[in-house]
Amino acid sequence: MLSVSGARLHARIAALARFGALPGGGVTRMCWSPAHEDARAWLLGELKTAGLAPWMDAAGNVFGGLGMTAIDARRPAVLTGSHIDTVPEGGILDGALGVLAGLECLQTIAEAGAAPARPLAVVAWSDEEGRYGSLFGSRAFCGRLDASAIPAMAAVDGERLVDAMQRAGFDAHRAPEARAPAGSVAAYVELHIEQGARLEESGVPIGVVDTIVGVRRARVVFLGQADHAGTTPMDRRRDAFLAAADYALKARELVVTRGGARAVTNFGVVHVHPGASNIVPGRAELVHEMRDPDPEVLERLARDCATLAEDVARSRAIGVEIRPMSATLPAPCAPRVQAAIEAACGDLGLGWQRLYSAAGHDAQNLATITDAGMLFVPSRGGRSHRVDEASDAAAIERGANVLLHTLLRLAA
Amino acid sequence: MLSVSGARLHARIAALARFGALPGGGVTRMCWSPAHEDARAWLLGELKTAGLAPWMDAAGNVFGGLGMTAIDARRPAVLTGSHIDTVPEGGILDGALGVLAGLECLQTIAEAGAAPARPLAVVAWSDEEGRYGSLFGSRAFCGRLDASAIPAMAAVDGERLVDAMQRAGFDAHRAPEARAPAGSVAAYVELHIEQGARLEESGVPIGVVDTIVGVRRARVVFLGQADHAGTTPMDRRRDAFLAAADYALKARELVVTRGGARAVTNFGVVHVHPGASNIVPGRAELVHEMRDPDPEVLERLARDCATLAEDVARSRAIGVEIRPMSATLPAPCAPRVQAAIEAACGDLGLGWQRLYSAAGHDAQNLATITDAGMLFVPSRGGRSHRVDEASDAAAIERGANVLLHTLLRLAA
Repeated sequence: MLSVSGARLHARIAALARFGALPGGGVTRMCWSPAHEDARAWLLGELKTAGLAPWMDAAGNVFGGLGMTAIDARRPAVLTGSHIDTVPEGGILDGALGVLAGLECLQTIAEAGAAPARPLAVVAWSDEEGRYGSLFGSRAFCGRLDASAIPAMAAVDGERLVDAMQRAGFDAHRAPEARAPAGSVAAYVELHIEQGARLEESGVPIGVVDTIVGVRRARVVFLGQADHAGTTPMDRRRDAFLAAADYALKARELVVTRGGARAVTNFGVVHVHPGASNIVPGRAELVHEMRDPDPEVLERLARDCATLAEDVARSRAIGVEIRPMSATLPAPCAPRVQAAIEAACGDLGLGWQRLYSAAGHDAQNLATITDAGMLFVPSRGGRSHRVDEASDAAAIERGANVLLHTLLRLAA
Repeated sequence: MLSVSGARLHARIAALARFGALPGGGVTRMCWSPAHEDARAWLLGELKTAGLAPWMDAAGNVFGGLGMTAIDARRPAVLTGSHIDTVPEGGILDGALGVLAGLECLQTIAEAGAAPARPLAVVAWSDEEGRYGSLFGSRAFCGRLDASAIPAMAAVDGERLVDAMQRAGFDAHRAPEARAPAGSVAAYVELHIEQGARLEESGVPIGVVDTIVGVRRARVVFLGQADHAGTTPMDRRRDAFLAAADYALKARELVVTRGGARAVTNFGVVHVHPGASNIVPGRAELVHEMRDPDPEVLERLARDCATLAEDVARSRAIGVEIRPMSATLPAPCAPRVQAAIEAACGDLGLGWQRLYSAAGHDAQNLATITDAGMLFVPSRGGRSHRVDEASDAAAIERGANVLLHTLLRLAA
């Protein structure tokens, strides 16, 4: 039975991990950054070496084709892939595994001289982590990128997408041209680390994703009054940071108590203005993120949190603005792709369990244009989005082989 | 009776306000910044134009002498002044008024051909607002600058003092050389806006400061665990930002309830790391500032807040480090200087009231080497450290004339 080269896959994982590597382990490789662009160049070289046809689209998505040199509706392709960008101080597997395992599968198929009925391609989607916009590359590919929003897209530090892409040699305004023609993708399957502890705790090697959570992000901006922090009496202050702190603690409780077991929330970005020790904060800005696999729960939580923000602001006599940043709907995975993954597990004698993905993934965009699915391998200690993110070498090889046989089934 | 030129004083206030001016009013003119250095050059020119002898010392303090060209223990001088640096998005009077009114007083005395017994000088102290170190210039002048601490002194954005001063043409390591010889300062008096609303509310034109509050600043760093914000169950997160939020709200209550009516506290600087919407904050850093005119109250509050920080961290299973940044003791003003200010008010037929200063000022350093005091003029609406800081033109002129006659009395 055909199987991937674990050694070659691990060598490529180690090679990619050098781009943006941090002294203490892990990587910082945000999309369009120099480290990311170096990694892109390396990936294009590896695709070529592997005997695949490399190309890029207008959104910066990198493709490696087997039996194809472009997306073409006349010959619908089976796609696999993930992303090579990371969060700041992220791990070496999140995204990288799906791209490099996909590359390894296609190389294995090519070297075996197998001739699947459908063309295949591995893809690295741009900015999955959403530094400038959530799931940017796959959004563009799936025709879900609003061209009019591009000029305003910016990172939390204020850098505009158009500038970041220009620095990397791309024209952001052209990104919507990456849209795939209708019917050009026959199926999509993505291998990823679980980023949670469910597989490890149940001792099951493969997770078959049935739903991907929806993620809502909003900027919650509290507008108080900058005042002298010595001379303004405490009871006259309109402190935007204390309002933000109050809101964050209460919104966390709200999501935990009213959202159910699967709802999660986070405040990962906090900016306080003007930012001097002796000035009462006049403005405080939080990025408030919420996730749930049930769209109705997510909608209800967003509504409740908006009411909460207004209550907190009113009780402190300050203003609040809630500016939606992104909202992805929970995405069900295609039964056909789930069945193919489960059959591949059967071929290889591996146990599997269904689970939902608590992280957003490019597969949720692909699910809007084709049959899409995902498989997970266990994350050690459930750790991800941190420098000590890890999966066992054997678990990675198992996942890559399940991906290989899933692709062979989908492309048959 | 001798009096200042209000028109000339207002013209200079408007001229200085152009350096670092913001489109909507107010100024951003942090010490050693290009805007500040341009203002320094302008001030040196104005001192010369006014017939004073300009010089600078190793800490970047700018002097304008009348009957003196240097600090000299053989001829103890009466000093007046304040600072020309501002907080970010600050007002046009905080500091500027004291420097420009002092200049105006000395010019008025020079032009009148008056010959006070003691030499006089107006001074603009470096970095009063403490971007790189609290009350930096007056601290150096009063021999309270620890040379060994200079290499580590840095702004909240991480820029080191040595680099900022080098860019402005100064050697930070030499700043302690600004120390004044013992006995070289006969008295110090500083005019400032009140930055609070007490004078305005009581309708009294002049405040005679009896005590200047002590200010303690500490960096409170919560150390949690950066994790994936989707896949990490809520009950397993060790969120440093939520701990910081919890601490800030509770510490504010602690200071308000246990500190008494004069105690104030602020969290003006907040940094959350790594700062991505989809990562649980692994580190959160607050600059916690506390002020009180009573040193024992301040000491007790600092102790109670340290205990609180540890309790909050322990209950959330995360770490906390408290790193003291600066601590000034409350400073009593000299009865001799208070009496001179009150007598000057009497000369001019102006009412006055005693009050404590809720803001720190260079006068508190001067109080450690000479008889020092301060007088306040009303701030409109009590507003300060914000772009709409203001005082009535007539109030400013009254303050400058009280300063003039206080200086004449102290130098007699």
